[in-house]
Amino acid sequence: MNTALPAPPAAAPLAITPVDIEAAAQRLQGVAHRTPVFTSRTADALTGAQVFFKCENFQRMGAFKFRGAYNALAQFTPEQRRAGVIAFSSGNHAQAIALSARLLGMPSVIVMPQDSPAAKLAATRGYQEGQPGSSVVLYDRYTEDREAIGRRLAQERGMTLIPPYDHPHVMAGQGTAAWELLQDTAESGPLDLLLVCVGGGGLISGCAVAAHHLNPGIEVIGVEPEAGNDTQQSLALGRVVHIDTPKTIADGAQTQHSGELTFPVIQRLVSRIVTVSDAQLVRAMHFCAERLKMVIEPTGGLGLAALLQGVVPARGKRVGVIVSGGNVDIARYAALLAGATPG
Amino acid sequence: MNTALPAPPAAAPLAITPVDIEAAAQRLQGVAHRTPVFTSRTADALTGAQVFFKCENFQRMGAFKFRGAYNALAQFTPEQRRAGVIAFSSGNHAQAIALSARLLGMPSVIVMPQDSPAAKLAATRGYQEGQPGSSVVLYDRYTEDREAIGRRLAQERGMTLIPPYDHPHVMAGQGTAAWELLQDTAESGPLDLLLVCVGGGGLISGCAVAAHHLNPGIEVIGVEPEAGNDTQQSLALGRVVHIDTPKTIADGAQTQHSGELTFPVIQRLVSRIVTVSDAQLVRAMHFCAERLKMVIEPTGGLGLAALLQGVVPARGKRVGVIVSGGNVDIARYAALLAGATPG
Repeated sequence: MNTALPAPPAAAPLAITPVDIEAAAQRLQGVAHRTPVFTSRTADALTGAQVFFKCENFQRMGAFKFRGAYNALAQFTPEQRRAGVIAFSSGNHAQAIALSARLLGMPSVIVMPQDSPAAKLAATRGYQEGQPGSSVVLYDRYTEDREAIGRRLAQERGMTLIPPYDHPHVMAGQGTAAWELLQDTAESGPLDLLLVCVGGGGLISGCAVAAHHLNPGIEVIGVEPEAGNDTQQSLALGRVVHIDTPKTIADGAQTQHSGELTFPVIQRLVSRIVTVSDAQLVRAMHFCAERLKMVIEPTGGLGLAALLQGVVPARGKRVGVIVSGGNVDIARYAALLAGATPG
Repeated sequence: MNTALPAPPAAAPLAITPVDIEAAAQRLQGVAHRTPVFTSRTADALTGAQVFFKCENFQRMGAFKFRGAYNALAQFTPEQRRAGVIAFSSGNHAQAIALSARLLGMPSVIVMPQDSPAAKLAATRGYQEGQPGSSVVLYDRYTEDREAIGRRLAQERGMTLIPPYDHPHVMAGQGTAAWELLQDTAESGPLDLLLVCVGGGGLISGCAVAAHHLNPGIEVIGVEPEAGNDTQQSLALGRVVHIDTPKTIADGAQTQHSGELTFPVIQRLVSRIVTVSDAQLVRAMHFCAERLKMVIEPTGGLGLAALLQGVVPARGKRVGVIVSGGNVDIARYAALLAGATPG
């Protein structure tokens, strides 16, 4: 779908600038991994493009989310650090906040649904280990309001809430993934196209600012799961559309809406959003295992799926793909791979 | 098992020297990938060691075998190049020879069992694509003698046979994996221990020569599958022991005996050989998927399995592990992961 998009008012300042991303890159130096950029002759042959995979599945705690979380927490005042950080998340943001807080020596409280997978609870608690004052607070997602829980804890303990995407420091941190990718591929020429998965828009907004700054000619395209195309709808309507929690295996993109800060960046700097099906995601996971020898989570396959399966034609182009993460329960991963249809 | 080993005659020259490995490293520059070295805080916590994984699963064609094959073929005379190369293999050596031959513009004939998995036949033929005179020759492994087929083709067409491990150029090429690993980890101090999987001994012999040259204090330990411990037996007896083709999921280590050239190097420079079970290999594959987000073939898990499961105690040490490859049928991989017992 390629719709003419209503642009935001030209003068509206965006939530982040390239300066914020450069500062984030400096904060993350020596703390986050500078993840490798992989290439694949098979991917190139299948697409007719030259493809560069930025492998955030190899990032600390297994996903790009570490970048934004650490960048946000590193900017806390001494008072904020003493009180600590609070986050609601059952996914990669939880682990990113827990790990970043421990690295910076501050308490973290992670509010998670009580029916979260045991592996995720254990991983989050593992990242909190050795940091006094840290805990996981469970809530019943059917009867309790997690935002109220968070607000109460924030008030009682003076903790600072860091949201998963709609925060300038989070967005700037995520943008360092594209910042590194464009730097690390510059030697052989500029990229024509950058494919980024879209949930709440933290990653793509940061990456779009970074990419357009380093390479003004680049086109940035977002990829959502078919069932959760709220941002595609939002771009078409020119306002943030809210949807029900979508049913998709791409759990990292099961957001119900873009952010107030991320959406204007997407409107300004992302040319369009495409969607892929769950079956296409599984094929991308299979491709990554077979050809790149790497494990990706379903959300991590969004960009690759769009490219491999021709949703975004890229013949003759130099294409960057952000592979967002690799945190997937291995039993579930094995089941998905076993059921993959070839192609 | 830690047996006092009969040493070979002190004066016997080994088949390769560090000079051969350095020359191989130069030949491979810009052709082979300089594969990344991964670390894992979880692996460190579990072992009490500091572990460095040399990820040859990310090597071209998916395994270290490319190094030795290319190093051998790059040294062919013009006459040899015109006639081309022949190899028997149903595994990584076949693909390594096919790809190296194409890169160097020479024909390759790969002799493979007619019941080889379709994926391996296709992959080998894929690497030969566009190179005139190349083919896969199938034989019946129950009624035909592959060596006789090879000798006949070599005579008729003047092709040069490159064996999978018992050749100095192959051994030197494989040694570049350790050469790179030791260079890339030197900044933080020397390694105390290097764990290498053992099939016919091409990889470990090259790696042992490289490692002892760059770091004379290092201990090199080989790891074999329990069912295929011919080299362990050979070391104990002081001569090359032949066994029946072992039943193990580590298909890359299903060799029946060490080589005439590799064994003396192992006797001189490898301190001991340990073994791991297939169940331990599957747990290592699971660990790699969950923690390192990477796909390894069963043979690729030999060193890691020995380390993670305490077969080689390594507390307080800096340990290098060569992860040999990642070529595994994905349906089989998914089945192995699904059946993994935790731990």
